[in-house]
Amino acid sequence: MTDLIYEQPLNEKIRSYLRIENLALQLQLHAEQDHQHQCFNPLFSLAELTERCDYRTDILKDIEKQIQLISHWRAHSNVDKAQVDQLTQRLVALKSPLQSQERIGCSLKRDKFISALRQRFNMTGAYCNFDFPQLHFWLGKDWQYRQQDIRNWLMQYQPLLDPIMLLLELIRTTANFSLRQAQVGFYQGDSSQALSLIRVKINSNQNCYPTISGNRNRHAIHFVDFDLHRHTGETVEFSLATCT
Amino acid sequence: MTDLIYEQPLNEKIRSYLRIENLALQLQLHAEQDHQHQCFNPLFSLAELTERCDYRTDILKDIEKQIQLISHWRAHSNVDKAQVDQLTQRLVALKSPLQSQERIGCSLKRDKFISALRQRFNMTGAYCNFDFPQLHFWLGKDWQYRQQDIRNWLMQYQPLLDPIMLLLELIRTTANFSLRQAQVGFYQGDSSQALSLIRVKINSNQNCYPTISGNRNRHAIHFVDFDLHRHTGETVEFSLATCT
Repeated sequence: MTDLIYEQPLNEKIRSYLRIENLALQLQLHAEQDHQHQCFNPLFSLAELTERCDYRTDILKDIEKQIQLISHWRAHSNVDKAQVDQLTQRLVALKSPLQSQERIGCSLKRDKFISALRQRFNMTGAYCNFDFPQLHFWLGKDWQYRQQDIRNWLMQYQPLLDPIMLLLELIRTTANFSLRQAQVGFYQGDSSQALSLIRVKINSNQNCYPTISGNRNRHAIHFVDFDLHRHTGETVEFSLATCT
Repeated sequence: MTDLIYEQPLNEKIRSYLRIENLALQLQLHAEQDHQHQCFNPLFSLAELTERCDYRTDILKDIEKQIQLISHWRAHSNVDKAQVDQLTQRLVALKSPLQSQERIGCSLKRDKFISALRQRFNMTGAYCNFDFPQLHFWLGKDWQYRQQDIRNWLMQYQPLLDPIMLLLELIRTTANFSLRQAQVGFYQGDSSQALSLIRVKINSNQNCYPTISGNRNRHAIHFVDFDLHRHTGETVEFSLATCT
């Protein structure tokens, strides 16, 4: 049995970032291996999320904030200055692709193949060749060709995906895991610092998963027995990281 | 480039059969190879389709009809009687699992893990571990364990899937492909016999796909250029099978 990490965002922005990261990871996988039509679901979800909300302003602010934070590290004598500079450069480089006039993903919206599929893709069981003969034709093409298509579609979102993935990586490094115990399957914590992300690592041999709730100052974790579908009465050992 | 077959159902029943067959083929694939959470989409689509409509009466009627048809074959001297008997036995055997009191798939509906996932699975981008910690836990299990789960879920639909797949197989054998030409990308046909399924085989080197419409006595095929996204003006070579 393995250690599994469960994450709970404590604000709407991090919730969106995690959702987008998750879709990006799925799409990356579909761009590496031929999974037939499976790439379209995360692609269309990504399109929908980024149409609903323009994340660019949030991301640009977060990049600035990180650059500021990192510049303070420079003052510490025990910090690898080359690494700090490299990270700053990476962050700075992510800014300009976000500052384009055009909204991200809008050229995908103009793609006739994509928009025809997207219109009816949520219909139940709609992957039959009579629903989408053009999809059937596309799926008949060599994988190299389709792979290039998927990479091109994914590339359009890269200006959003790259900074979101780096920002989440930096947020995750703000806290290390430390051992905790949940008596009768319940744990409660608080923090004077505003938190943005709770991470719970637990070995699946305990046969339970956490349901986490909270805000930036307080959080509660209930452990649920997977087979019984209800709160466990056991003492649960887990590791906790509370990220700012 | 390869030959691709496009199918168009000419009535609602065959349309549903094809949809269900397509979902069944996807699920079978997900039961053979580990595709993480991808199995749930076809599983939930199958659940939805079979809840919306109880196909058992239709299928039982179609089985009876096929048994009748096959019994007429026996009269022909050039028919392999052993094969006819075997097919009849296969059809007869498919009847009793359809005659159970309980509606097919209803025990899946009572499964707490499945019903919790299903409720919110259509939410955009909702495969994050904070959306479904129980899914994250399940995905952490060994593939052998998850494979057994998928097989069990699939097995509940087998009483529907097995006859539908055999019936479609039999319908497809009612016609052979014969060469046709679509002048200026258009073809029209009619039939005095009531048709249920149109099949178009076309080599993808012609870079177009068919859009087929019709009813049991008439059908029309427009060929669309994949790159131009519009009706082709070329003469298109294809093979057609009109199944009863």
